[in-house]
Amino acid sequence: MRDTFEVRAHDAAGRIGELTVPRAGTTVETPALLPVINPNILTVEPAKLESTFGAEILITNSYIIRGDDDLAERALDEGLHEMLDFSGAIMTDSGSFQLAEYGEIDTSTTEILEFQRDIGSDIGTPVDVPTPPDVSREQAAADLETTRQALRDAEDVDVGDMLVNAPVQGATYPDLREQAGREAAASDLDVFPVGAVVPMMNSYRYDDMVDAVAAAKRGLDADCPVHLFGAGHPMMFALAVALGCDLFDSAAYALYARDGRYLTVSGTEQLDDLEYMPCACPVCHRHTPADLRAADADEQERLLAEHNLHVTFEELRRVKQAIRDGDLLELVEKRARGHPAMLDGYRAMLEHADQLEREDRASKGAFFGLSHESARRPEVRRHHDRLDRLAVPDSLLLSEYGTPSEHTYDEVWRVEPPFGPFPRALSETYPLTAELPDRTDEAAERAAADGVAALVAANPDADVTLAHDDWSADALARVPNGVELENLAGLGGDGNESE
Amino acid sequence: MRDTFEVRAHDAAGRIGELTVPRAGTTVETPALLPVINPNILTVEPAKLESTFGAEILITNSYIIRGDDDLAERALDEGLHEMLDFSGAIMTDSGSFQLAEYGEIDTSTTEILEFQRDIGSDIGTPVDVPTPPDVSREQAAADLETTRQALRDAEDVDVGDMLVNAPVQGATYPDLREQAGREAAASDLDVFPVGAVVPMMNSYRYDDMVDAVAAAKRGLDADCPVHLFGAGHPMMFALAVALGCDLFDSAAYALYARDGRYLTVSGTEQLDDLEYMPCACPVCHRHTPADLRAADADEQERLLAEHNLHVTFEELRRVKQAIRDGDLLELVEKRARGHPAMLDGYRAMLEHADQLEREDRASKGAFFGLSHESARRPEVRRHHDRLDRLAVPDSLLLSEYGTPSEHTYDEVWRVEPPFGPFPRALSETYPLTAELPDRTDEAAERAAADGVAALVAANPDADVTLAHDDWSADALARVPNGVELENLAGLGGDGNESE
Repeated sequence: MRDTFEVRAHDAAGRIGELTVPRAGTTVETPALLPVINPNILTVEPAKLESTFGAEILITNSYIIRGDDDLAERALDEGLHEMLDFSGAIMTDSGSFQLAEYGEIDTSTTEILEFQRDIGSDIGTPVDVPTPPDVSREQAAADLETTRQALRDAEDVDVGDMLVNAPVQGATYPDLREQAGREAAASDLDVFPVGAVVPMMNSYRYDDMVDAVAAAKRGLDADCPVHLFGAGHPMMFALAVALGCDLFDSAAYALYARDGRYLTVSGTEQLDDLEYMPCACPVCHRHTPADLRAADADEQERLLAEHNLHVTFEELRRVKQAIRDGDLLELVEKRARGHPAMLDGYRAMLEHADQLEREDRASKGAFFGLSHESARRPEVRRHHDRLDRLAVPDSLLLSEYGTPSEHTYDEVWRVEPPFGPFPRALSETYPLTAELPDRTDEAAERAAADGVAALVAANPDADVTLAHDDWSADALARVPNGVELENLAGLGGDGNESE
Repeated sequence: MRDTFEVRAHDAAGRIGELTVPRAGTTVETPALLPVINPNILTVEPAKLESTFGAEILITNSYIIRGDDDLAERALDEGLHEMLDFSGAIMTDSGSFQLAEYGEIDTSTTEILEFQRDIGSDIGTPVDVPTPPDVSREQAAADLETTRQALRDAEDVDVGDMLVNAPVQGATYPDLREQAGREAAASDLDVFPVGAVVPMMNSYRYDDMVDAVAAAKRGLDADCPVHLFGAGHPMMFALAVALGCDLFDSAAYALYARDGRYLTVSGTEQLDDLEYMPCACPVCHRHTPADLRAADADEQERLLAEHNLHVTFEELRRVKQAIRDGDLLELVEKRARGHPAMLDGYRAMLEHADQLEREDRASKGAFFGLSHESARRPEVRRHHDRLDRLAVPDSLLLSEYGTPSEHTYDEVWRVEPPFGPFPRALSETYPLTAELPDRTDEAAERAAADGVAALVAANPDADVTLAHDDWSADALARVPNGVELENLAGLGGDGNESE
């Protein structure tokens, strides 16, 4: 068991956690955002990140500091916290990004980890190999072997109470990601970045990113804090947290500000295209887009960076509130409508519904049916999986509308898309307390039919009748042959109900 | 032609407009939000609404003022603008709400309109009858006759340059709403509230509200400014604006604040349930939920009201920016995921796609495929409607993947869910520049099949082959019989493409 990370609340595979960072003498609440600090260009001062935006942790690059004699001397002399004027936790990167970018770097895991220790980093990073997507399997496996050696080297460094990252690589090979996750979790390292997802995000391959994260998570343990390395766009947080990511880092807030880009929870706008501020943060409340365009370049960059930070931290608070409320997947539904690639990401996530279901909590706020996709949520899956626990009488009516005033069935159960059948006694239990659209859809009907099929499979001898409200042929085709069908269409839910 | 309202920009049936209010000597940019001012309780001072929140117009109740001797005297003496300390436009209500609530009031259209004129209102209101949903048709028609008479009476009042509302009633009878809209538009009154939708909103019947608005809009003219009376929740704005509403009034910001409720763009939270502020407005930036809970009652109410106003005006700016960008329906997609009833509202709106299409502009930003519902958007409808304008050769391949390197067809066109077929030359024209999810869905396939059917219907003699990527049986069943089918499944879009 890792004693540095404690999970406080769950929703889907997402969690609110507490990461203890002994060297900083602090704990960081997760999901957390680590603003990336370029020690050469402080777009927003770290002290301001702490006081104004509530940043508890940031990340900077030890390889850049080491490569600059002045910075290196100051960092070794004063320590990172004094140099940056930041009292929270500081994570440092190792130069792996530069390795990926330029093909070589002039350091090793052992040397750079010792340097990170010496400049007072709270969480250090070995030199892993960020394998890009779509390389050959041989290449991905060979890179992974190098990363594996880096983790072994890291375990051998005397880091004191500095925590150490154990990056999980494997490119677009789920089995390699899972294996890498399992090995990282078995090491005595502390924090688990899922690496090299930036190229996927840059090319809008959010479904591939989801598959990579889900695979890494299958290998990692529940008590592993997971960092989605390089993911700083707020539109990504809900989805990534729902998959079980705990830490994010953002260079975007500053880099985007530099070329006039303005973050929102569903994408990126160009300041030049804005006539209205689609935000109420202190920057957008005080300024119009025209004000910002008229500002001098430094002021515009600073104000845009502050807006970008506001919207980023706001979304993180929203995600945490959603976990508390148990409606994180409802937030994911909303964010999935930010871009077609986000919808691909959400649809990919639902293919891992079983995996999410295993970590999800049993009872939450009301389930909201918000789309065709809702029918594939883990809560629906769980209901179907548990139908075999229910005692079924010899003759059973499953009715979408209510109990007929006269009947000869042993029992009458409700059937409701997308959940399918359940005894009335369960109506007030999660997730059957769901709020669902009146205008149901065929994905929900099909899921309900699958529920009927699951019930029949567990009780092959029961006589089952299904009274449905005009389900599609496609849905009815999924109902097993032995089930008698009755179409209630036109009854409108009135007339034959006793409750 | 009405010269008080000018439309500046369009998207779906939504518009940015300019309402000239001659008596106030001002113009109001629409969509606009009118904060409701209870002259007895100024939760947020009108001057602050103007300076801090940018309110250009507000609404107060002349019947309440008239019923209070002190207020009536001050209003008659100083005029409303001085009494409330507000320099923008002021709309006044007439007591219709009180009539609906208490069954009678002690005034008439003529008398209350003269009073509104005398206290300096800029937009007055006659005494219409807000018929609730689901009354008998006879009742709705009888109420409408009373409202009709009120509009006639209003036309006879000498109101000077005060504008006058012409409420559109008709309960849940679309034909009555449409007729009422047509008659109101034919009057010489100025602003058109769609009335009595509050009971529908209060019971989450957003689909019924959509049908009522769509019906009223069919009767009204394009130059009629439309007020969705009583709709002040920001989650509703994008949907209502897309249907063609221009004005909203909000009492919610203050009423909700009074009992600890906190507005968001997707619903309402209880302050007591918040652990994190899911917002970055100046109030939420400076305070935690615990701060607000610890504040004294008046301070808490004021701060919550200010937050509620921030999020309300923020959403209005976002809606206006979306109209400028041509992605209002993308915003509606997002807001439809706030609550199952909002999804019902969106689904109901798509049943009026033809109506929206008539007002929509021809070219916008990229169409985003964001859900199953996207396949039913007006842009898809328009593409299908226009397929009969295209010249079709004798033999035509419609291919989802590209042009085979060798073939004997006269032409090869693309086919893309949800749009269906189009010649390659149109690839760079709206809406075929769409961004679509890689993981397509059957609703999109079905819509594409409908496009194929429309093309074939217009060209019954053409030899058409459809090369599709494994469409569902359901979609293929919509392709006309004469079309030859070829399943590209497994080709993965590679290999046989020449571009």
